[in-house]
Amino acid sequence: MLGWFYGGTKSTNVRVSLPAVCFVWQIAMIVLFGVFIRYNEEADTHWQEFRRENNISSDIENDFYFRYPSFQDVHVMIFVGFGFLMTFLKRYSFGAVGFNFLVAAFGIQWALLMQGWFHTLDPATGKILIGVENLINADFCVAGCLIAYGALLGKVSPVQLLVLTLFGVTLFAVEEYIILDLLHARDAGGSMVIHAFGGYYGLAISWVLYRPNLNLSKRLNGSVYHSDVFAMIGTLFLWMFWPSFNSAITDHGDGQHRAAINTYLALASSVLTAVGISSVTQKKGKLDMVHIQNATLAGGVAMGTAAEFMITPYGSLIVGFCCGMISTFGYVFVTPLLEKYLKLQDTCGVHNLHAVPGMLGGFIGAIVAASATEEVYSREGLINTFDFEGDFADRTVGTQGGFQAAACCVAIAFGIVGGGCIPIWGDPADDNCYDDEAYWEVPEDDESIPPILEYNNHMIHKLPDLSESNFQVEQI
Amino acid sequence: MLGWFYGGTKSTNVRVSLPAVCFVWQIAMIVLFGVFIRYNEEADTHWQEFRRENNISSDIENDFYFRYPSFQDVHVMIFVGFGFLMTFLKRYSFGAVGFNFLVAAFGIQWALLMQGWFHTLDPATGKILIGVENLINADFCVAGCLIAYGALLGKVSPVQLLVLTLFGVTLFAVEEYIILDLLHARDAGGSMVIHAFGGYYGLAISWVLYRPNLNLSKRLNGSVYHSDVFAMIGTLFLWMFWPSFNSAITDHGDGQHRAAINTYLALASSVLTAVGISSVTQKKGKLDMVHIQNATLAGGVAMGTAAEFMITPYGSLIVGFCCGMISTFGYVFVTPLLEKYLKLQDTCGVHNLHAVPGMLGGFIGAIVAASATEEVYSREGLINTFDFEGDFADRTVGTQGGFQAAACCVAIAFGIVGGGCIPIWGDPADDNCYDDEAYWEVPEDDESIPPILEYNNHMIHKLPDLSESNFQVEQI
Amino acid sequence: MLGWFYGGTKSTNVRVSLPAVCFVWQIAMIVLFGVFIRYNEEADTHWQEFRRENNISSDIENDFYFRYPSFQDVHVMIFVGFGFLMTFLKRYSFGAVGFNFLVAAFGIQWALLMQGWFHTLDPATGKILIGVENLINADFCVAGCLIAYGALLGKVSPVQLLVLTLFGVTLFAVEEYIILDLLHARDAGGSMVIHAFGGYYGLAISWVLYRPNLNLSKRLNGSVYHSDVFAMIGTLFLWMFWPSFNSAITDHGDGQHRAAINTYLALASSVLTAVGISSVTQKKGKLDMVHIQNATLAGGVAMGTAAEFMITPYGSLIVGFCCGMISTFGYVFVTPLLEKYLKLQDTCGVHNLHAVPGMLGGFIGAIVAASATEEVYSREGLINTFDFEGDFADRTVGTQGGFQAAACCVAIAFGIVGGGCIPIWGDPADDNCYDDEAYWEVPEDDESIPPILEYNNHMIHKLPDLSESNFQVEQI
Repeated sequence: MLGWFYGGTKSTNVRVSLPAVCFVWQIAMIVLFGVFIRYNEEADTHWQEFRRENNISSDIENDFYFRYPSFQDVHVMIFVGFGFLMTFLKRYSFGAVGFNFLVAAFGIQWALLMQGWFHTLDPATGKILIGVENLINADFCVAGCLIAYGALLGKVSPVQLLVLTLFGVTLFAVEEYIILDLLHARDAGGSMVIHAFGGYYGLAISWVLYRPNLNLSKRLNGSVYHSDVFAMIGTLFLWMFWPSFNSAITDHGDGQHRAAINTYLALASSVLTAVGISSVTQKKGKLDMVHIQNATLAGGVAMGTAAEFMITPYGSLIVGFCCGMISTFGYVFVTPLLEKYLKLQDTCGVHNLHAVPGMLGGFIGAIVAASATEEVYSREGLINTFDFEGDFADRTVGTQGGFQAAACCVAIAFGIVGGGCIPIWGDPADDNCYDDEAYWEVPEDDESIPPILEYNNHMIHKLPDLSESNFQVEQI
Repeated sequence: MLGWFYGGTKSTNVRVSLPAVCFVWQIAMIVLFGVFIRYNEEADTHWQEFRRENNISSDIENDFYFRYPSFQDVHVMIFVGFGFLMTFLKRYSFGAVGFNFLVAAFGIQWALLMQGWFHTLDPATGKILIGVENLINADFCVAGCLIAYGALLGKVSPVQLLVLTLFGVTLFAVEEYIILDLLHARDAGGSMVIHAFGGYYGLAISWVLYRPNLNLSKRLNGSVYHSDVFAMIGTLFLWMFWPSFNSAITDHGDGQHRAAINTYLALASSVLTAVGISSVTQKKGKLDMVHIQNATLAGGVAMGTAAEFMITPYGSLIVGFCCGMISTFGYVFVTPLLEKYLKLQDTCGVHNLHAVPGMLGGFIGAIVAASATEEVYSREGLINTFDFEGDFADRTVGTQGGFQAAACCVAIAFGIVGGGCIPIWGDPADDNCYDDEAYWEVPEDDESIPPILEYNNHMIHKLPDLSESNFQVEQI
Repeated sequence: MLGWFYGGTKSTNVRVSLPAVCFVWQIAMIVLFGVFIRYNEEADTHWQEFRRENNISSDIENDFYFRYPSFQDVHVMIFVGFGFLMTFLKRYSFGAVGFNFLVAAFGIQWALLMQGWFHTLDPATGKILIGVENLINADFCVAGCLIAYGALLGKVSPVQLLVLTLFGVTLFAVEEYIILDLLHARDAGGSMVIHAFGGYYGLAISWVLYRPNLNLSKRLNGSVYHSDVFAMIGTLFLWMFWPSFNSAITDHGDGQHRAAINTYLALASSVLTAVGISSVTQKKGKLDMVHIQNATLAGGVAMGTAAEFMITPYGSLIVGFCCGMISTFGYVFVTPLLEKYLKLQDTCGVHNLHAVPGMLGGFIGAIVAASATEEVYSREGLINTFDFEGDFADRTVGTQGGFQAAACCVAIAFGIVGGGCIPIWGDPADDNCYDDEAYWEVPEDDESIPPILEYNNHMIHKLPDLSESNFQVEQI
């Protein structure tokens, strides 16, 4: 609140820009949807004809029933998971959960268009046909931008976030097209496409927006007791539903089943190593909430690529084991170094939770793919899992591994270069950071003001100079 | 707490009435269930015979698997969504989430009976046969009463709420019978049946219970920082699961699929216009949490009727666009006018979130129905979507549109007349409103009381007169 | 925090023990998974072959689609439900939700092994083949240990909790083998196997760890306003998803359908009687949050065994009616007596929510089983429901009832004897209980410190003796 008095030269007044962006972009969405987007054959009233033509015996085989429960879990991760994970700051919970909401609601619309143009445009009609799988992919696409928001939390305006999302979704769609279609890499849970890209995208933007005087807002860059509990809501919904995230768009049947099991196991393993490292690096072995809130999720990030492969249950545990450890080490040692030497201010530590585990997940996927055998997968299983069909019918697992590794590099490059180049301006002043007062009507918290200060119908927030020497409470 | 000292003539002691109502009504439920309610053929141990007789090839075609995931999402909306949405008041969170819980738990039982008598009574046996679809409908029915609670939040006793629910569910079942069965209107997500009815029902009761001296509780009619964050839990679970709400009881296959897509899009669009209007109507463009918590949901309300129709994806965006805007305007401008000129005290603003968007949703549904064509729907699709079978085989889409519009008027009329006529008494005094102390054992919040006031084993809540000019607290 | 100064002889320093246990045990898990655990045929890439061999017509008949939505609901109950239910203490929310997370993440791994050895070990290969049903069972197994944690909340170290879990899961797997395999009892939702066992296990450990001087931490053994609201998140997610819990591993088709309906009804009924008894036993009829948070769930616990039987809808209501009442009475009258006369300190009252309703649920199941008839179930339904096949083809329902009752006794005996015998040491000092400071880095809560105390860069937490008669604050 004091930020308004001591003023920055940077205004936080978004009364023109924010409504303008919201309305103009939303109208643009309506026009583009009108031109391009229609229901696909499983969501259209012609479904019964489609069923008969394709010998589908029951309505239950509509893709809706394969994917809708996973979609809703992913939806919870995007809106409650990411949103509440960022409420840990003592006075930025409105911004965390509110801007996350705004950004995601815009992003999913733009993602349906961008991903549609690249992936599901029907060449005959020029229309994008959407169904539940597209909704999941749109949520995934937005996840990349929300990860980037994590690095910038408390330091950017809602208008900047919308710009970040517009560019982020666009970059995502291009990167995804290169990785999944051109390189024909597999990345069902998006270790590379979502996490590595999103993490490095956010870090690059954070580097561009470096604030040398951020310590002016230092008093607000931390948690209070209940804000840490709120953040655990985010953590737990992310953790619990990550098996749905990694299995949401994998193959029907064994593909979804296996991806869920692998992710479940990797996440369980991460929790133990995150707790272990957190305890051993703190005095008296006390746990740090930052680690529990974040590093416990590293196993899910790192299984994004390999979850649908035959990585084996113990392989999943090993991935979670290593990434939980690496991620916690990142929070303890790497984040302070990044800020000091690379001028990277990373509010939520996305470097440790998304960028590095995502990158590792990409390379783990490459290794697992390269070591796949017909003996383990069966010939048919190998073809189904890696989609060795059409133009790629002759690809060997070794080649596939190489392309997987290349895909990971593409994701990182898109993140870094894209984040470094997007035009982004209008950030609040250094002493307005981490403060909901900048962009929200914040209620007076009379809870925390003691009764003594409420007398005579006016609040006494400040008292005349009162040094210890003449502060006196007497017992006469 | 002071309410107890300054006393009202209206007692908040419910030690006789509340247990009496709980026990007597619950025993009545048990007796009525014993007489009337049985499992339907899909939940009964005779299911395997039923399967063979009806050539159902697999257990997975049991309606349970079509609807259970949506049911659970709806269940979360009812208990966490509505409950937490109302926790925004600084000292009424127990009442918000606790009475919501009580009312819904009673209401779903009574709804199974009332809806059963009107819709699924087996004439041969005189039994109501229930399955997962009935559970969803019971949750829907209760939603109407919870919406009404929103208008009355903080101003009524739990006994009054149970009375409101008894009558509300009864009215709902009748209204629903008229609308769905007699008028043969479609209303899968209940824009009319649930939202318009529930909204006007609550407003009418609020009008009956008008309190001219409500400003005695003014200091408690607002939020604190963390109560606003709690309310966002409610908002987000409502927002995320609304696609399940609108698709929960639509047709298997394309019906559920399309309803989910349409609702997802309308909701996304609402967020942007709610944010835009919120920003443009506040000084310095700051966002107001009330709008973000509520108006972002207007698109879901307004898609309740049309979600299963071929409204097209861009049509859904337009609906969300308009209703997000209208709802936010309602919070800014209409609610204060309603209180001033119509004596309507509407705690949660259900007028703006449910009554008006629900009514609009009803008319949108009428227009979309009236403009349906065989070209777009296919002949079969048209019959399936509007259920033009049996007595209604000859109905045209134009006629259907007319009946849809009539249905909307029926819902509103039931709400207003029903709410104005139900016998409801025993509300707490004006200075006891918005205060959990009236009906709950509230813990001492020593967190917010500074150490200085805890001396000598008694709390000092009040001090003698203390004017700023001579800051001095002496009692010598 | 003061605990550190006034010191106990019991250290809370877990900097060696906690990381050691986490790492050693996690590595052991990896090794054991490597030796024993593989994907089952529905999660393996050989699924398409398996489908053809077994004439499974569609991918949708993979067990994943029957059980995954329920699995995710159960997962939410374990991690958010149990975790947040325990956040009600004013300063133990980190421990509640964090240690719950740690214990469950370790427990599910160990449970997959233990339950696998007893139930799904493939004799040909010596491997445990896992799929989604195993994940649900692992979550169930861990639930028993989390219930035990409820009795010990705030009084044990994380290392003790991990030890409790290691032994608890082991005992659970043996007990479950005896009950489900040897006695051939049915217990789909685990009234006996999970709740009675877990409840008595926790109570027995609590008895062993009796603290005569626990009143040293009395000031922290209570809630504050917002911690009670957090706890309602746990309550509601448990309440809403309990139908999924009790139906998660029941038979496909009618079994899952019926179990969900019965549980839904029993829970609804519990809410009304819990509210009724809560109100009638408090002065002025005010409700107590402890009852609403806990006793409302008793119906779900008590339906754990009978949910899949033809208990009838009104039978379910009666179960909920009685158990909601008994559970609330337990909180009001029994818990204080247990502490006074039996030296049982039961932080969350698991005696009233799990031990007694679980035991009752076991006996209710026995009665319902014994009174099953072919007329009601059909011959085929009876065989399916009670699994009267193979060695048990000739069992009568009367015999089944007897074995159900015996099973309940086995569960209770395992809980009491097991809990009384496990080696558990290293608990914190009496004045460190219910305090997150012991094991967590807790942020300074400057929210709750009034401005007056923040002058001159140092906090004034304490003032000299200050009696009301001469209270004086002067500025001289």
